[in-house]
Amino acid sequence: MRLCSLAALVAAALLCCGPAAAQFKNADAAIEYRQGALTVMDNHYDRIGAMVKGKVPFDAHVAQVNADLVVTLARLPWSAFVEGSDKGDTNAKPEVWSQPDKFKAAAQRLQDATVKLAEAAKTGNPDALKTAFGATSDACRSCHDDFRKKH
Amino acid sequence: MRLCSLAALVAAALLCCGPAAAQFKNADAAIEYRQGALTVMDNHYDRIGAMVKGKVPFDAHVAQVNADLVVTLARLPWSAFVEGSDKGDTNAKPEVWSQPDKFKAAAQRLQDATVKLAEAAKTGNPDALKTAFGATSDACRSCHDDFRKKH
Repeated sequence: MRLCSLAALVAAALLCCGPAAAQFKNADAAIEYRQGALTVMDNHYDRIGAMVKGKVPFDAHVAQVNADLVVTLARLPWSAFVEGSDKGDTNAKPEVWSQPDKFKAAAQRLQDATVKLAEAAKTGNPDALKTAFGATSDACRSCHDDFRKKH
Repeated sequence: MRLCSLAALVAAALLCCGPAAAQFKNADAAIEYRQGALTVMDNHYDRIGAMVKGKVPFDAHVAQVNADLVVTLARLPWSAFVEGSDKGDTNAKPEVWSQPDKFKAAAQRLQDATVKLAEAAKTGNPDALKTAFGATSDACRSCHDDFRKKH
């Protein structure tokens, strides 16, 4: 009975982390991947921000293209916070691994916010975009406060 | 007349490089962006490669999801080879900037190959995927040979 429970635990652990970890050669590759995804996402997010802040003229098509990219990219980084990737060239706080449910919720909040951002971009309404952009920025900031080291 | 030609040239230059360059804070940010996009693309490409090479079981859905990501990511790096980003933490050869038409064609070849890869993935046929994967790898290699420093 105890052996069965152990086997179930091991199976659950493999289901949880095995496949994700196997998608990266090592912890450094996982760090590089998630930083890459966040860097590219940030760049396309900033292009929307430039419009929202009036630094460049509003362009509904550009907003939509960039928002769609942000949605796609916002899904990627999270599976790369694999075990062992708390060490190395990373600003991730230990809380990513010690508070996994809270981290997962923060990642989900961002993803949900980006979906709403893309929906707002599709309306072609600059005010709707601004509101959704603000909510997305709040999701970024909140996760950074809790899970990213200041630098 | 000469002034008009000059104005046209300036306008053309702005159309060509102004907006792209403006999407990056500086040359280093452009380098980080393009490396980020290529790193993430490479990771998802490798996940298809693992199937094609029989290292993991073939899974049509996984192939399709990853191929779609590769298509999206393959469009991104090229606008980030902005002027001045030949210096810094980059393996790009000077030929990127001295042979822009050839570089553009190589980038387009990759993008076309990834579209065919995604089409092959959609068929759910492992052999079609393998063929398209080979053609995409050729496009990667050819561009790296001509435009990336060995390291």
